[in-house]
Amino acid sequence: MGTVLLSELATEIVIPICAVIGIVFSLIQWFLVSRVKMTHERPATSPSNSKKNGFNDSLIEEEEGINDHSVVAKCAEIQNAISEGATSFLFTEYQYVGVFMIAFAILIFLFLGSVEGFSMKSRPCTYDQQNLCKPALATAVFSTVSFLLGAITSVLSGFLGMKIATYANARTTLEARKGVGKAFIVAFRSGAVMGFLLAANGLLVLYIAINLFKLYYGDDWEGLFEAITGYGLGGSSMALFGRVGGGIYTKAADVGADLVGKVERNIPEDDPRNPAVIADNVGDNVGDIAGMGSDLFGSYAESSCAALVVASISSFGINHEFTAMLYPLLISSVGILVCLITTLFATDFFEIKDVKEIEPALKKQLIISTILMTVGIAIVTWIGLPSSFTIYNFGVQKVVKNWQLFLCVAVGLWAGLIIGFVTEYYTSNAYSPVQDVADSCRTGAATNVIFGLALGYKSVIIPIFAIAVSIFVSFSFAAMYGIAVAALGMLSTIATGLAIDAYGPISDNAGGIAEMAGMSHRIRERTDALDAAGNTTAAIGKGFAIGSAALVSLALFGAFVSRAAISTVDVLTPKVFIGLIVGAMLPYWFSAMTMKSVGSAALKMVEEVRRQFNTIPGLMEGLAKPDYANCVKISTDASIKEMIPPGALVMLTPLIVGTFFGVETLSGVLAGSLVSGVQIAISASNTGGAWDNAKKYIEAGASEHARSLGPKGSDPHKAAVIGDTIGDPLKDTSGPSLNILIKLMAVESLVFAPFFATHGGLLFKIF
Amino acid sequence: MGTVLLSELATEIVIPICAVIGIVFSLIQWFLVSRVKMTHERPATSPSNSKKNGFNDSLIEEEEGINDHSVVAKCAEIQNAISEGATSFLFTEYQYVGVFMIAFAILIFLFLGSVEGFSMKSRPCTYDQQNLCKPALATAVFSTVSFLLGAITSVLSGFLGMKIATYANARTTLEARKGVGKAFIVAFRSGAVMGFLLAANGLLVLYIAINLFKLYYGDDWEGLFEAITGYGLGGSSMALFGRVGGGIYTKAADVGADLVGKVERNIPEDDPRNPAVIADNVGDNVGDIAGMGSDLFGSYAESSCAALVVASISSFGINHEFTAMLYPLLISSVGILVCLITTLFATDFFEIKDVKEIEPALKKQLIISTILMTVGIAIVTWIGLPSSFTIYNFGVQKVVKNWQLFLCVAVGLWAGLIIGFVTEYYTSNAYSPVQDVADSCRTGAATNVIFGLALGYKSVIIPIFAIAVSIFVSFSFAAMYGIAVAALGMLSTIATGLAIDAYGPISDNAGGIAEMAGMSHRIRERTDALDAAGNTTAAIGKGFAIGSAALVSLALFGAFVSRAAISTVDVLTPKVFIGLIVGAMLPYWFSAMTMKSVGSAALKMVEEVRRQFNTIPGLMEGLAKPDYANCVKISTDASIKEMIPPGALVMLTPLIVGTFFGVETLSGVLAGSLVSGVQIAISASNTGGAWDNAKKYIEAGASEHARSLGPKGSDPHKAAVIGDTIGDPLKDTSGPSLNILIKLMAVESLVFAPFFATHGGLLFKIF
Repeated sequence: MGTVLLSELATEIVIPICAVIGIVFSLIQWFLVSRVKMTHERPATSPSNSKKNGFNDSLIEEEEGINDHSVVAKCAEIQNAISEGATSFLFTEYQYVGVFMIAFAILIFLFLGSVEGFSMKSRPCTYDQQNLCKPALATAVFSTVSFLLGAITSVLSGFLGMKIATYANARTTLEARKGVGKAFIVAFRSGAVMGFLLAANGLLVLYIAINLFKLYYGDDWEGLFEAITGYGLGGSSMALFGRVGGGIYTKAADVGADLVGKVERNIPEDDPRNPAVIADNVGDNVGDIAGMGSDLFGSYAESSCAALVVASISSFGINHEFTAMLYPLLISSVGILVCLITTLFATDFFEIKDVKEIEPALKKQLIISTILMTVGIAIVTWIGLPSSFTIYNFGVQKVVKNWQLFLCVAVGLWAGLIIGFVTEYYTSNAYSPVQDVADSCRTGAATNVIFGLALGYKSVIIPIFAIAVSIFVSFSFAAMYGIAVAALGMLSTIATGLAIDAYGPISDNAGGIAEMAGMSHRIRERTDALDAAGNTTAAIGKGFAIGSAALVSLALFGAFVSRAAISTVDVLTPKVFIGLIVGAMLPYWFSAMTMKSVGSAALKMVEEVRRQFNTIPGLMEGLAKPDYANCVKISTDASIKEMIPPGALVMLTPLIVGTFFGVETLSGVLAGSLVSGVQIAISASNTGGAWDNAKKYIEAGASEHARSLGPKGSDPHKAAVIGDTIGDPLKDTSGPSLNILIKLMAVESLVFAPFFATHGGLLFKIF
Repeated sequence: MGTVLLSELATEIVIPICAVIGIVFSLIQWFLVSRVKMTHERPATSPSNSKKNGFNDSLIEEEEGINDHSVVAKCAEIQNAISEGATSFLFTEYQYVGVFMIAFAILIFLFLGSVEGFSMKSRPCTYDQQNLCKPALATAVFSTVSFLLGAITSVLSGFLGMKIATYANARTTLEARKGVGKAFIVAFRSGAVMGFLLAANGLLVLYIAINLFKLYYGDDWEGLFEAITGYGLGGSSMALFGRVGGGIYTKAADVGADLVGKVERNIPEDDPRNPAVIADNVGDNVGDIAGMGSDLFGSYAESSCAALVVASISSFGINHEFTAMLYPLLISSVGILVCLITTLFATDFFEIKDVKEIEPALKKQLIISTILMTVGIAIVTWIGLPSSFTIYNFGVQKVVKNWQLFLCVAVGLWAGLIIGFVTEYYTSNAYSPVQDVADSCRTGAATNVIFGLALGYKSVIIPIFAIAVSIFVSFSFAAMYGIAVAALGMLSTIATGLAIDAYGPISDNAGGIAEMAGMSHRIRERTDALDAAGNTTAAIGKGFAIGSAALVSLALFGAFVSRAAISTVDVLTPKVFIGLIVGAMLPYWFSAMTMKSVGSAALKMVEEVRRQFNTIPGLMEGLAKPDYANCVKISTDASIKEMIPPGALVMLTPLIVGTFFGVETLSGVLAGSLVSGVQIAISASNTGGAWDNAKKYIEAGASEHARSLGPKGSDPHKAAVIGDTIGDPLKDTSGPSLNILIKLMAVESLVFAPFFATHGGLLFKIF
């Protein structure tokens, strides 16, 4: 079997050190961003830029209004309003979510505790029957604790992300006065703060939890890592509410603002006269930033947990090789270092001078991180794993070589890159798909929608093949452990992924602030260029989130099946098949709820915005201020109220199916929702991204073709705005929430597996 | 095991007699329709109406223009143009399809013949190893023959349906002058002609084929019914091209006509000045009539084949009880009689006097046929089956009682009714879902689309539960045989289903003809009322088609698994799982192709219509005639060209997957495409139906609420028109084609199963 090069002690040191490096790096980035002053001084150049840049500043990039103190003050004021709105919403959300968290924690304890009737006696281990494992009651207690830990970390991740974003948006606006390159760096650095903080934080908390739990569990690795799965459940359930609540918030405000402002009143996007404009900008931060942060943190936590729980029943689990056991965490640790180097390529090694360089720079981030990470994985695999080991594959032992495991991780990593590129191709207006959609606006909104839907459907093909190939390779080499580490491979560059993803809404907000502060058209053009790239990176981020969710869910599903002691999940048995078809239906049910919620909330917003335009004298002329707070309140109330039914659907389905129909049907449900949900999620977010960028393509008018469709206010542009509005809930509410649906149901089933296996299937037992 | 009450001889007589009764009944209906004269005489009242009606005629329902000879001549002229266009398109389509048919027939022969190296020697049977069965070469020959037979019957069904519809549409218009009740009867009778002709024809051809094949096969029932599966494949592959080609044709014309006519030129729907108006009406006949006829014929043929092939390996297959063996055909025979009685309720027992009675009358058809059929099934089960028998359930024998099989058929039948009702609820403008969608038009097209999509997603929930319950019940009682007869149960009232389905496009055409012939507003209002009900029944028909397709595919899938000798289809093996996820992707790929096709073809149509409006002087003023033929040509060319790629995707996928990846992966693909495709198909057709009726709701202005949204030309109405246009390809092209996709891949896999089992999985064999 061979020995592991990295000693246990070294592992114990390497992981926390990498996490700390990540945190320190993110603090440095924050410091650099903070040097853009929001007070009345002249904004300082960030010190990481070389002398040459500082020199350039005064010579070439000096712009109008750079010394205009009132603009800075206005930006600061808007930023504060956005930050306050976002903070207040998140606190309201957390109150509700907190109640849920406690209730669900109690549920976990009761369900898992009841498996052996709350007995405190040790029992024979499931996979190694000769040894004694800790009692089920311990699993219940520790699962509950790790659930709470995951939930709190997730909430913290989302909240910090929001704080950073609202800290950075006005700074990006101010830097845009000096040129697009400067603005890009601020926006990107802020994204990096969030990316590194989340990745490092997730790793550190997990690492500490494992070490603390080990004090009790000692030799019982199986019990230890089963309890740790609660961490993934906690992270994901918070992410669900964050994504759904935030998604409804942001899109109710966005759609409401657009429908009255752009369509009826013919005022520009983010115009300060629009009462819903602050709510819209708040929404970007609570939905696209906090929601997405929680989401990717959840994916990360779950794939780590899935890998750990499968590893705990493989040979290094049984033989207690600590380093090999923590291989998943080592991968993530190296990932932080790799992303750190990658980030420097965007902010320090090269400089962006032109609008056209933005997208390639972001794309380069993906490529560089993937190449470096491949080397990183090879090193970790070489020093962290024995040359061969056995894993548990649904009842049979399977020998895996370390190079095979390297391939598993690498295939996931590269599949992520492919998904990223395909997403970029289908959502960036540099390529023909989005241009075709823009062109179809010539014949009106209907053809725009038809072409956009077709584009979304088509964009599913290659990502699914990429996912299928990585599943096949990793499954064949190392069964469920292979899948879990493939997911981890895809998420290993999460810090970079989050950085380029968070960059999008920050730029979007920066544009909004420029508009509201009444800054010149040139500034807005720059932030628009950043934002157009941001739409694409947001879509890429969603692509990663979905791709990794598919792999993670499958790994969790596999772990569930092992833990529930099911031997096969045969489609051709009635119990499994009805699960499969009903599971495939769930994403539709869920999407119906979330889309309808956005629609209803948007209608309320429209009425309020119309009311204000009609009743506040001088509003349209810019003489009176709208009542922003009322719109913020409408979004807040609607999203809190509307996030409960879809949340309940996701959280209750595994419990109901498992309890009443048993583990076979639940397996079917998990497989069905996985294979169906992935498709809708990808197509929804790409369709939405494409519509958004088709509209931006017409607005920017950068080519002969684009100009023939424009300008703003032309019929094709109006058609494009309709498409964009339809795409909003697809790409920011229902689509991205779906990957949480599939992950969450899988991890919940895994956590509750012992209960379902013991007490589940009541209905079939009765009849 | 018990004996069968119905003797073999009686069975041999009952089945063809029922088929002949069906054909005679449909001829009588045709005769009744033909009594509405298209020449210059005064239209005669149909004789089935009692004296009282004839009396009423002259007193109350006499209308303006009833004696206007020029109107009749004009209607006849338009009808001829539509009929010629449709005939010419279908002949063009059949030329291409004919080439495919021959090529595929050769492929079937070569693939199946090669299984045993074209050996002419008999081989041991698969399920009864002691007996000798006919050589693989015989299977190849007879499969090829039955494939051709199925293809020709399908083509004939579609063609006859189209002929009847184009014969009836102008007659419906003329009868509408006398009142909505009269028009309803003509439209419904014409639908019945098609329904009965197709059902009886399908049954008769299948019955004759079985008896002819028996002359060669004799005792080898297994071989006989395996060869018969080719009939289903032939029927379904023609249906694919019919649905896709016809669907693209009709929607390219419809969308193109609407975009320029209604949106740009602000002229009413079906205005004779619109150059695409004839193409649009032709489209209804080739897409909604011929395509749908082929589709439901395909479902019927496949479910019969699936039931027969599973039955052939069950105890009455092995013991050679002819009556029990032909139980599936007996069900269909009784179905024809039941539907005959049901039809009389609509045309003779009651009379429609008011617009509001149309929908209830159609709904009553569903209820009556279901109740009567339940009795029919009970009788057939009692006299046609032994009290208990064994069936083959993936390697184990299972004893089934006759009352259990009755429940299997009945659960399918009633699930169909539930699906029908749910579809009605979500697509009829009498209920709140469509009214909510109409209401959302207040805030523009974007909210209309968001609400419409959400409605479609939501409408999936109950049908899926209905399908799941019927699968569970029938699967548990009688494994795959149970599923197959459940599908047959759902399709047993196919004659009624087709009648109410075909009624829709006939009414739609009648309205178009009224508009084009310049008839009064009151006539158009009546045909619009018929058409609004028709949209709902069309959606119900699609619901049936999809629900039965799900059951049929599962039954075929089960038969495939048996024939390919796979023991389990375990989701948790890499080969199956990648099949599952890729299979779930296929409906998206297919929809992307078909929707894009409609979009592109519509763009071409828009350009042509615009060109004619711009270049033909006096066209807009009604002084010059447009060039209808050119628009017909554009639709024809586009649909022929565009139907090939999606057709190839469906036809080649099973061949490629089976040959290169083997039967396990193919099983995954079938299961994946089934569970994912059903959802998209249901949501697409309901979304489209809801948008169409939301528009009609605003136009009709029958309530306070509806009037507040209207009238025609108001902003909400314009938003509703956009939704309707988007819904067109969803409900008439991509949605309904999907159920063919899932059925066709399953039946194709079944036919080629011996080849895949012997030579398949090349890729895995190499590596």
